[in-house]
Amino acid sequence: MDQRISLITLGVADLRRARTFYEDGLGWRPVDSPEGVVFYQLPGMAFALFGRDDLAEDARLNIDGSFSGITLACNQRSEADVDRVLEQAEAAGARILKPAERVFWGGYSGYFADLDGHVWEVAFNPGWTLAEDGTLTVG
Amino acid sequence: MDQRISLITLGVADLRRARTFYEDGLGWRPVDSPEGVVFYQLPGMAFALFGRDDLAEDARLNIDGSFSGITLACNQRSEADVDRVLEQAEAAGARILKPAERVFWGGYSGYFADLDGHVWEVAFNPGWTLAEDGTLTVG
Repeated sequence: MDQRISLITLGVADLRRARTFYEDGLGWRPVDSPEGVVFYQLPGMAFALFGRDDLAEDARLNIDGSFSGITLACNQRSEADVDRVLEQAEAAGARILKPAERVFWGGYSGYFADLDGHVWEVAFNPGWTLAEDGTLTVG
Repeated sequence: MDQRISLITLGVADLRRARTFYEDGLGWRPVDSPEGVVFYQLPGMAFALFGRDDLAEDARLNIDGSFSGITLACNQRSEADVDRVLEQAEAAGARILKPAERVFWGGYSGYFADLDGHVWEVAFNPGWTLAEDGTLTVG
Protein backbone atom coordinates (compact mmCIF):
# COMPACT_ATOMS: atom_id res chain seq x y z
CA MET A 1 0.00 0.00 0.00
CA ASP A 2 1.57 3.27 -1.05
CA GLN A 3 2.69 5.48 1.81
CA ARG A 4 -0.02 8.14 1.67
CA ILE A 5 -3.35 9.22 3.09
CA SER A 6 -5.81 10.52 0.52
CA LEU A 7 -8.77 11.32 2.74
CA ILE A 8 -9.53 11.57 6.44
CA THR A 9 -13.20 11.31 7.36
CA LEU A 10 -14.57 12.34 10.72
CA GLY A 11 -17.86 10.79 11.74
CA VAL A 12 -20.10 13.42 13.31
CA ALA A 13 -23.40 13.33 15.17
CA ASP A 14 -24.85 16.41 13.46
CA LEU A 15 -23.41 17.44 10.12
CA ARG A 16 -24.75 20.98 10.24
CA ARG A 17 -23.32 21.58 13.71
CA ALA A 18 -19.94 20.12 12.69
CA ARG A 19 -19.86 22.30 9.55
CA THR A 20 -20.57 25.35 11.66
CA PHE A 21 -17.60 24.52 13.88
CA TYR A 22 -15.12 23.95 11.05
CA GLU A 23 -16.42 26.64 8.71
CA ASP A 24 -17.69 29.50 10.86
CA GLY A 25 -15.53 28.65 13.85
CA LEU A 26 -12.20 27.72 12.27
CA GLY A 27 -12.64 29.35 8.88
CA TRP A 28 -12.39 26.27 6.66
CA ARG A 29 -13.97 26.33 3.19
CA PRO A 30 -15.66 23.27 1.65
CA VAL A 31 -14.91 22.24 -1.91
CA ASP A 32 -17.86 19.91 -2.41
CA SER A 33 -20.91 18.86 -0.41
CA PRO A 34 -22.95 16.10 -1.99
CA GLU A 35 -25.87 14.73 0.04
CA GLY A 36 -24.87 13.98 3.62
CA VAL A 37 -21.14 14.63 3.37
CA VAL A 38 -18.85 17.65 3.09
CA PHE A 39 -15.37 17.62 1.55
CA TYR A 40 -12.55 20.06 2.22
CA GLN A 41 -9.40 20.27 0.12
CA LEU A 42 -6.23 20.25 2.26
CA PRO A 43 -2.67 20.40 0.94
CA GLY A 44 -2.26 17.13 -0.94
CA MET A 45 -5.30 15.41 0.51
CA ALA A 46 -8.98 15.67 1.37
CA PHE A 47 -10.87 15.93 4.65
CA ALA A 48 -14.52 15.02 5.09
CA LEU A 49 -17.29 15.35 7.64
CA PHE A 50 -19.87 12.56 7.39
CA GLY A 51 -22.66 11.35 9.64
CA ARG A 52 -21.15 8.90 12.10
CA ASP A 53 -23.84 6.25 11.54
CA ASP A 54 -23.51 6.56 7.77
CA LEU A 55 -19.73 6.24 8.02
CA ALA A 56 -20.00 3.16 10.21
CA GLU A 57 -22.49 1.62 7.80
CA ASP A 58 -20.25 2.43 4.84
CA ALA A 59 -17.38 0.60 6.52
CA ARG A 60 -19.66 -2.23 7.76
CA LEU A 61 -18.84 -1.36 11.36
CA ASN A 62 -20.90 -1.75 14.42
CA ILE A 63 -21.64 1.77 15.60
CA ASP A 64 -21.89 0.66 19.24
CA GLY A 65 -18.59 -1.15 19.13
CA SER A 66 -15.08 0.18 19.25
CA PHE A 67 -15.34 2.31 16.11
CA SER A 68 -13.17 5.37 16.58
CA GLY A 69 -15.38 7.54 14.42
CA ILE A 70 -12.52 8.25 12.04
CA THR A 71 -11.54 6.56 8.81
CA LEU A 72 -8.39 7.03 6.75
CA ALA A 73 -8.38 6.36 3.03
CA CYS A 74 -5.55 5.35 0.74
CA ASN A 75 -6.75 5.92 -2.79
CA GLN A 76 -5.50 3.74 -5.62
CA ARG A 77 -5.05 4.17 -9.35
CA SER A 78 -7.28 1.27 -10.44
CA GLU A 79 -9.78 -1.30 -9.20
CA ALA A 80 -7.07 -3.96 -9.54
CA ASP A 81 -4.84 -1.96 -7.18
CA VAL A 82 -7.66 -1.80 -4.63
CA ASP A 83 -7.98 -5.60 -4.71
CA ARG A 84 -4.22 -6.04 -4.46
CA VAL A 85 -3.87 -3.70 -1.45
CA LEU A 86 -6.74 -5.34 0.42
CA GLU A 87 -5.11 -8.75 -0.16
CA GLN A 88 -1.79 -7.35 1.04
CA ALA A 89 -3.36 -5.92 4.19
CA GLU A 90 -5.21 -9.17 4.94
CA ALA A 91 -2.01 -11.16 4.49
CA ALA A 92 -0.36 -8.82 7.01
CA GLY A 93 -3.04 -9.58 9.59
CA ALA A 94 -5.66 -6.89 8.89
CA ARG A 95 -9.32 -7.72 9.22
CA ILE A 96 -11.31 -7.10 6.06
CA LEU A 97 -14.41 -5.14 7.08
CA LYS A 98 -15.87 -4.82 3.60
CA PRO A 99 -14.53 -6.51 0.50
CA ALA A 100 -14.11 -4.10 -2.38
CA GLU A 101 -17.21 -3.41 -4.39
CA ARG A 102 -18.57 -0.87 -6.85
CA VAL A 103 -20.13 1.96 -4.86
CA PHE A 104 -22.89 4.47 -5.48
CA TRP A 105 -20.53 7.43 -5.94
CA GLY A 106 -19.03 5.83 -9.01
CA GLY A 107 -15.90 4.28 -7.56
CA TYR A 108 -14.69 1.00 -6.12
CA SER A 109 -13.97 0.66 -2.42
CA GLY A 110 -13.28 -1.71 0.45
CA TYR A 111 -12.31 -1.34 4.09
CA PHE A 112 -9.92 -3.04 6.48
CA ALA A 113 -9.10 -2.63 10.17
CA ASP A 114 -5.44 -2.65 11.19
CA LEU A 115 -4.19 -4.64 14.18
CA ASP A 116 -5.42 -1.92 16.58
CA GLY A 117 -8.80 -1.54 14.92
CA HIS A 118 -7.98 1.66 13.02
CA VAL A 119 -10.11 1.72 9.90
CA TRP A 120 -8.71 2.20 6.40
CA GLU A 121 -10.66 2.57 3.21
CA VAL A 122 -8.92 1.45 0.04
CA ALA A 123 -10.60 3.11 -2.91
CA PHE A 124 -10.43 3.93 -6.57
CA ASN A 125 -12.25 7.19 -7.26
CA PRO A 126 -12.31 8.08 -10.97
CA GLY A 127 -13.73 11.53 -10.13
CA TRP A 128 -10.74 12.68 -8.08
CA THR A 129 -7.19 13.35 -9.25
CA LEU A 130 -4.39 11.28 -7.78
CA ALA A 131 -1.09 12.80 -8.93
CA GLU A 132 2.12 10.91 -9.60
CA ASP A 133 3.52 12.10 -6.27
CA GLY A 134 0.55 10.66 -4.37
CA THR A 135 -1.17 13.95 -3.64
CA LEU A 136 -4.92 14.04 -4.13
CA THR A 137 -7.16 16.78 -5.48
CA VAL A 138 -10.93 16.63 -5.04
CA GLY A 139 -12.54 16.76 -8.46
CA MET B 1 -6.97 27.51 11.93
CA ASP B 2 -5.38 26.95 8.55
CA GLN B 3 -7.03 24.28 6.46
CA ARG B 4 -4.44 21.53 6.75
CA ILE B 5 -3.46 18.41 8.66
CA SER B 6 0.23 18.18 9.49
CA LEU B 7 0.31 14.88 11.34
CA ILE B 8 -2.00 11.96 12.00
CA THR B 9 -1.10 9.82 14.99
CA LEU B 10 -2.54 6.37 15.58
CA GLY B 11 -2.47 5.10 19.15
CA VAL B 12 -1.40 1.46 19.20
CA ALA B 13 -1.30 -1.22 21.88
CA ASP B 14 2.09 -2.62 20.84
CA LEU B 15 4.42 -0.38 18.86
CA ARG B 16 6.59 -3.22 17.58
CA ARG B 17 3.59 -5.17 16.34
CA ALA B 18 2.10 -2.07 14.67
CA ARG B 19 5.44 -1.28 12.97
CA THR B 20 5.59 -4.83 11.65
CA PHE B 21 2.14 -4.41 10.11
CA TYR B 22 2.85 -1.05 8.42
CA GLU B 23 6.47 -1.74 7.48
CA ASP B 24 6.77 -5.46 6.72
CA GLY B 25 3.10 -5.91 5.85
CA LEU B 26 2.31 -2.77 3.84
CA GLY B 27 5.83 -1.72 2.88
CA TRP B 28 5.97 1.69 4.56
CA ARG B 29 9.36 3.18 5.49
CA PRO B 30 9.87 5.23 8.67
CA VAL B 31 11.72 8.52 8.53
CA ASP B 32 12.41 8.89 12.25
CA SER B 33 11.84 6.80 15.36
CA PRO B 34 12.70 8.55 18.59
CA GLU B 35 11.92 6.69 21.82
CA GLY B 36 8.41 5.26 21.81
CA VAL B 37 7.15 6.78 18.55
CA VAL B 38 7.68 6.20 14.84
CA PHE B 39 7.21 8.83 12.14
CA TYR B 40 6.51 8.24 8.46
CA GLN B 41 6.72 10.93 5.79
CA LEU B 42 3.63 11.02 3.57
CA PRO B 43 3.01 13.44 0.70
CA GLY B 44 2.76 16.82 2.42
CA MET B 45 2.27 15.51 5.92
CA ALA B 46 3.46 13.08 8.57
CA PHE B 47 1.99 9.90 10.05
CA ALA B 48 2.93 8.46 13.42
CA LEU B 49 2.45 5.33 15.47
CA PHE B 50 2.55 5.97 19.22
CA GLY B 51 1.61 3.93 22.25
CA ARG B 52 -2.09 4.49 22.88
CA ASP B 53 -1.63 5.18 26.60
CA ASP B 54 1.20 7.62 25.90
CA LEU B 55 -0.89 9.39 23.29
CA ALA B 56 -3.85 9.68 25.64
CA GLU B 57 -1.59 11.03 28.36
CA ASP B 58 -0.02 13.52 25.96
CA ALA B 59 -3.48 14.86 25.10
CA ARG B 60 -4.66 14.67 28.74
CA LEU B 61 -7.35 12.20 27.78
CA ASN B 62 -8.88 9.47 29.83
CA ILE B 63 -7.82 6.25 28.16
CA ASP B 64 -10.96 4.42 29.30
CA GLY B 65 -13.23 7.13 27.97
CA SER B 66 -14.34 7.87 24.46
CA PHE B 67 -10.87 8.52 23.07
CA SER B 68 -10.82 7.36 19.47
CA GLY B 69 -7.16 6.45 19.59
CA ILE B 70 -6.37 8.90 16.79
CA THR B 71 -5.17 12.49 16.95
CA LEU B 72 -4.88 15.00 14.13
CA ALA B 73 -2.38 17.83 14.32
CA CYS B 74 -2.45 21.24 12.70
CA ASN B 75 1.04 22.66 12.99
CA GLN B 76 1.57 26.38 13.28
CA ARG B 77 4.38 28.77 12.41
CA SER B 78 4.91 30.19 15.91
CA GLU B 79 3.96 29.77 19.56
CA ALA B 80 1.72 32.82 19.23
CA ASP B 81 -0.18 31.13 16.41
CA VAL B 82 -0.72 28.06 18.60
CA ASP B 83 -2.26 30.24 21.31
CA ARG B 84 -4.40 32.08 18.78
CA VAL B 85 -5.75 28.89 17.19
CA LEU B 86 -6.59 27.32 20.55
CA GLU B 87 -8.48 30.48 21.50
CA GLN B 88 -10.30 30.41 18.17
CA ALA B 89 -11.28 26.75 18.63
CA GLU B 90 -12.48 27.34 22.19
CA ALA B 91 -14.55 30.31 21.06
CA ALA B 92 -16.15 28.04 18.45
CA GLY B 93 -17.20 25.54 21.12
CA ALA B 94 -14.21 23.20 21.30
CA ARG B 95 -13.13 21.78 24.64
CA ILE B 96 -9.52 22.56 25.51
CA LEU B 97 -7.94 19.29 26.64
CA LYS B 98 -4.49 20.70 27.31
CA PRO B 99 -3.55 24.36 27.19
CA ALA B 100 -0.46 24.98 25.12
CA GLU B 101 2.84 24.45 26.87
CA ARG B 102 6.49 23.90 26.07
CA VAL B 103 7.02 20.19 25.52
CA PHE B 104 9.94 17.82 25.92
CA TRP B 105 10.55 17.44 22.18
CA GLY B 106 11.43 21.10 21.88
CA GLY B 107 8.15 22.53 20.64
CA TYR B 108 4.98 24.12 21.98
CA SER B 109 1.70 22.23 21.89
CA GLY B 110 -1.88 22.10 23.12
CA TYR B 111 -4.91 19.94 22.38
CA PHE B 112 -8.62 20.50 21.84
CA ALA B 113 -11.59 18.22 21.19
CA ASP B 114 -14.06 19.26 18.51
CA LEU B 115 -17.82 19.06 19.06
CA ASP B 116 -17.81 15.30 18.38
CA GLY B 117 -14.79 14.60 20.57
CA HIS B 118 -12.27 14.30 17.73
CA VAL B 119 -8.90 15.32 19.10
CA TRP B 120 -6.68 17.97 17.49
CA GLU B 121 -3.20 18.93 18.53
CA VAL B 122 -2.15 22.48 17.72
CA ALA B 123 1.63 22.64 17.72
CA PHE B 124 4.70 24.62 16.81
CA ASN B 125 7.57 22.26 16.00
CA PRO B 126 10.80 24.13 15.23
CA GLY B 127 12.43 20.86 14.12
CA TRP B 128 10.02 20.21 11.24
CA THR B 129 9.56 22.22 8.05
CA LEU B 130 6.19 23.81 7.38
CA ALA B 131 6.23 25.18 3.82
CA GLU B 132 4.36 28.23 2.59
CA ASP B 133 1.72 25.98 0.97
CA GLY B 134 1.03 24.24 4.29
CA THR B 135 2.80 20.98 3.48
CA LEU B 136 4.97 19.52 6.22
CA THR B 137 8.30 17.72 6.03
CA VAL B 138 9.64 15.77 8.99
CA GLY B 139 13.05 17.19 9.91
